[in-house]
Amino acid sequence: MLANPIPWPDDARCCVSITWDIDAESGLAYRHREGMEQLVATRTQLRYGPRIAIPRLVEVLREREMVQTFFVPGWVIERYPAAIDLLLENGHEIGLHGYLHERMCEISAEEEATALERGLAAYVARVGERPRGWRAPGFTFSKHSADLLIDAGFRYDSSLMGDDMPCVFNGRNGRLIEFPIDWTSDDWPHYMHSRDFGFMMPISAPKRAVEVYEAEFEAAWRYGGHWVTVWHPFLSGRPARLTAILDLVDRIRERGGAWLAPLGAVYDHVEAMIAAGRWTPTEDGLPFHDRPDID
Amino acid sequence: MLANPIPWPDDARCCVSITWDIDAESGLAYRHREGMEQLVATRTQLRYGPRIAIPRLVEVLREREMVQTFFVPGWVIERYPAAIDLLLENGHEIGLHGYLHERMCEISAEEEATALERGLAAYVARVGERPRGWRAPGFTFSKHSADLLIDAGFRYDSSLMGDDMPCVFNGRNGRLIEFPIDWTSDDWPHYMHSRDFGFMMPISAPKRAVEVYEAEFEAAWRYGGHWVTVWHPFLSGRPARLTAILDLVDRIRERGGAWLAPLGAVYDHVEAMIAAGRWTPTEDGLPFHDRPDID
Amino acid sequence: MLANPIPWPDDARCCVSITWDIDAESGLAYRHREGMEQLVATRTQLRYGPRIAIPRLVEVLREREMVQTFFVPGWVIERYPAAIDLLLENGHEIGLHGYLHERMCEISAEEEATALERGLAAYVARVGERPRGWRAPGFTFSKHSADLLIDAGFRYDSSLMGDDMPCVFNGRNGRLIEFPIDWTSDDWPHYMHSRDFGFMMPISAPKRAVEVYEAEFEAAWRYGGHWVTVWHPFLSGRPARLTAILDLVDRIRERGGAWLAPLGAVYDHVEAMIAAGRWTPTEDGLPFHDRPDID
Amino acid sequence: MLANPIPWPDDARCCVSITWDIDAESGLAYRHREGMEQLVATRTQLRYGPRIAIPRLVEVLREREMVQTFFVPGWVIERYPAAIDLLLENGHEIGLHGYLHERMCEISAEEEATALERGLAAYVARVGERPRGWRAPGFTFSKHSADLLIDAGFRYDSSLMGDDMPCVFNGRNGRLIEFPIDWTSDDWPHYMHSRDFGFMMPISAPKRAVEVYEAEFEAAWRYGGHWVTVWHPFLSGRPARLTAILDLVDRIRERGGAWLAPLGAVYDHVEAMIAAGRWTPTEDGLPFHDRPDID
Repeated sequence: MLANPIPWPDDARCCVSITWDIDAESGLAYRHREGMEQLVATRTQLRYGPRIAIPRLVEVLREREMVQTFFVPGWVIERYPAAIDLLLENGHEIGLHGYLHERMCEISAEEEATALERGLAAYVARVGERPRGWRAPGFTFSKHSADLLIDAGFRYDSSLMGDDMPCVFNGRNGRLIEFPIDWTSDDWPHYMHSRDFGFMMPISAPKRAVEVYEAEFEAAWRYGGHWVTVWHPFLSGRPARLTAILDLVDRIRERGGAWLAPLGAVYDHVEAMIAAGRWTPTEDGLPFHDRPDID
Repeated sequence: MLANPIPWPDDARCCVSITWDIDAESGLAYRHREGMEQLVATRTQLRYGPRIAIPRLVEVLREREMVQTFFVPGWVIERYPAAIDLLLENGHEIGLHGYLHERMCEISAEEEATALERGLAAYVARVGERPRGWRAPGFTFSKHSADLLIDAGFRYDSSLMGDDMPCVFNGRNGRLIEFPIDWTSDDWPHYMHSRDFGFMMPISAPKRAVEVYEAEFEAAWRYGGHWVTVWHPFLSGRPARLTAILDLVDRIRERGGAWLAPLGAVYDHVEAMIAAGRWTPTEDGLPFHDRPDID
Repeated sequence: MLANPIPWPDDARCCVSITWDIDAESGLAYRHREGMEQLVATRTQLRYGPRIAIPRLVEVLREREMVQTFFVPGWVIERYPAAIDLLLENGHEIGLHGYLHERMCEISAEEEATALERGLAAYVARVGERPRGWRAPGFTFSKHSADLLIDAGFRYDSSLMGDDMPCVFNGRNGRLIEFPIDWTSDDWPHYMHSRDFGFMMPISAPKRAVEVYEAEFEAAWRYGGHWVTVWHPFLSGRPARLTAILDLVDRIRERGGAWLAPLGAVYDHVEAMIAAGRWTPTEDGLPFHDRPDID
Repeated sequence: MLANPIPWPDDARCCVSITWDIDAESGLAYRHREGMEQLVATRTQLRYGPRIAIPRLVEVLREREMVQTFFVPGWVIERYPAAIDLLLENGHEIGLHGYLHERMCEISAEEEATALERGLAAYVARVGERPRGWRAPGFTFSKHSADLLIDAGFRYDSSLMGDDMPCVFNGRNGRLIEFPIDWTSDDWPHYMHSRDFGFMMPISAPKRAVEVYEAEFEAAWRYGGHWVTVWHPFLSGRPARLTAILDLVDRIRERGGAWLAPLGAVYDHVEAMIAAGRWTPTEDGLPFHDRPDID
């Protein structure tokens, strides 16, 4: 079913990486630069992430002796340092997620480079080292992103949707390991409702969202894939939803056969497999300069 | 799971506050000031609230000896006095909900103050005393709201989404107790369908909406939280839906361990706990003047 | 639970009126006057109603010896005379539904009067008598509709959402019996998907839509109400959906206690109950000239 | 239930045609001609179709000894020749789907003719013969399409929604056999989520989408119809979803009584039935020049 399967450690059948995007109000600030001070309810909805959900996640993950990956915009690192420190103290991995949740596909290469620089500065100032992982805000990976990221020393990206397995994007000066995601395992389509964001959608019960997630996990387990979630603390960190997904995580762990690992650890494994000649990654050929020339 | 839990009365595990927003046509009138006379079907859809659903709610709650909290815009108080009187005669709590369901985040501080004054005047004229509780129309709590509400003598707000437990907002001249809500326990995403409001969404079966609510209640029950609903009489007061949520309420009461109380009573309890030194509320730090200064 | 219950015939507990709107392409023609010739797929989607679903409905209802109510715009009567004749030959009731599915709330009183006249002319030319029942296209009942309809000799309307039971609207020169509907029992929110109409929504499985309908029926059965559906032959007349709702109708009939009747028969019953002094209808007070005067 | 049933081969009760649209980035390129290079994530989401899902589909269909129908825009044929060759080598049928997924209803007859020509040129260059089948991109069959397709030698279309059975459209110089589809059996309403396409919708679990499909199949099986799916490799070719629909296909095959066939084979059967005088197709009368003349 899955092309080019990678051998997982310890004979695991599949790999599961629970990853979170701690956007806080960064996307709202980017979208409503002038008016965001007035959008207090939506701000509190989003602030719930770093203020309430992150300490809770740290606690429940500590109980399970698990570490996971959290992508954070630079502006959020600056505004919510306590959440960042808590994650670091507990061994979680922090990736970068823009500076102000910029929509990279709508700005110039120069603006994107500036956003990346500001994000990196905020990251390094708090974390003390450079990030290895990147997720483009809103998955807005632009045609300039790969080279900018490679030049900035990133090792992996997790924003694209073109495969079920880790793969590789080669750029001018190096390469990125890509860990593909999909809207399906993002919690946004299941839980988001906000006029300020333009999402007027029904909200699923936790067990209905878990139906969707569990089908994705089952396929990874059956066929040897890498299941990567994109969850938001302000959505999935609410008690009812967190209970439901922890139940799923606990079922996965009890069943055995799945390697639960943060993306950084998966990156190390992938590089080791490549170095050992045990696996050759597929390349997707980014950037693809084949704009239709039909006019 | 929940930070800073408050002790509930009589050793209850958790607290449940069923609250309702009686918007009637106020939001439609605010949105379609000129054309609302023509939108007769949508008006009847909304008028169902105070005309049909409120007497029904009063009856089923009387049978259960329960009192609940109803937030009402001043304009609705003036147009539907019989519904207000019926609620008052049966001991229900009435909070204020703007004058014409204004979107406070889109108007100036002066306009917001005027709306608040008009709402208060309508409230006092009918109820005979000032309101203690406020819910911002459409959750459009602005950066001016906290101080305006404190200066007007409000004691609590229930419009924001930043916590699972009661918390506190300090303003210039005092403080507000905040009872957080969330879109999840609002019936709008589950039941609303209206072109005139711009909500073209599927409509859930009552048992599917109850799946969502029950998950929220279960989490409150398990972890000691405060579950606050935001229901609309014109949506959830329809017979099929009311039957389903009354079944849920009856299950909650039969199970025991949950304190079902209107927000005013919860407010009194919270203040008593604070006064007795038995609980220290978390503060969210509104208004937060940290607009991104990145241009 | 229900205010002002009406006694149903033969000691029935409740009343069920399955009603259909045969819009065909009228709404598309009204919305895309210039471009509709190009929208062939959407036209065929809509033409499925009178061409395919109506003969099928006539057949399955004949097997069950049931007659139902079909609301049809005048333009559809002119374009699909065979469907109308088939319904008439089988004893079904036909109500009027505008001429070109006009959005009455967006046009002047004169334009509405013209649309009504054209609709009546088309109706009388085919049916041979004047209609008794009306449903406003898209539920766009305007502030002028009640008087226009009364003056045109209509006896009842079924477009508004303000009650669970038949009620009355008094106009200048007479009154209309109103049979309230609601979006909930309309099949549009459950089954419609169309870019040309601006409805980008998920599509429910028939059994999920029936969950919604059955809850509405159960409430009518339990509390003595009048359940009125608003179904569209092009949506609910598809085989899988029709099978599911016929199963529901058959369950309702086997259970007993429900009077299944077209709206015209319910109208006769309501008038007889009023004449006999056995029931006094509630009045909703249309037109309601209480536009907020707050500027 | 179904009018004008056609006798299926080998006494089959019904016919099932699984068809796929391999859009890749063609629709995105048509919609965002200037900006598509920047929309890398959405491009990878769409590229998943020909790159990942097509080899997978070929493999699972080979295991089942099934051939199916794939509609492909000319631009996709040019950009993804390996996917096309793989399908051809495995005996699958390829139909045409525009050149750049043009919205035919929004362009002139001349522009549509040009798009068709370019599509045909790309098709013939790769496949070596002219296509027999057509599906209009996004179902945007225009009033010019029937004659353009007939003149170009197409034998059948599968873009319209006006029937449950094969039917016929007569044009100036010949006729097209039509295999009707419906949004219901399209995977887009169940699985699509994309800001770049303007679809902000919840995403169904595979078993919930299969509930919808299975109801459609059951109706075809019960009443003798022709069930035609419209699936997209980038959506339904993901492992969890493909597993769920393969389970459905396997249940259908094990049960017996359904003829699973690509549209080309159904076309041959339909023509043979007509030639043998064993079946007379219904005609829908396209193009229908009855634009409302009411101004």
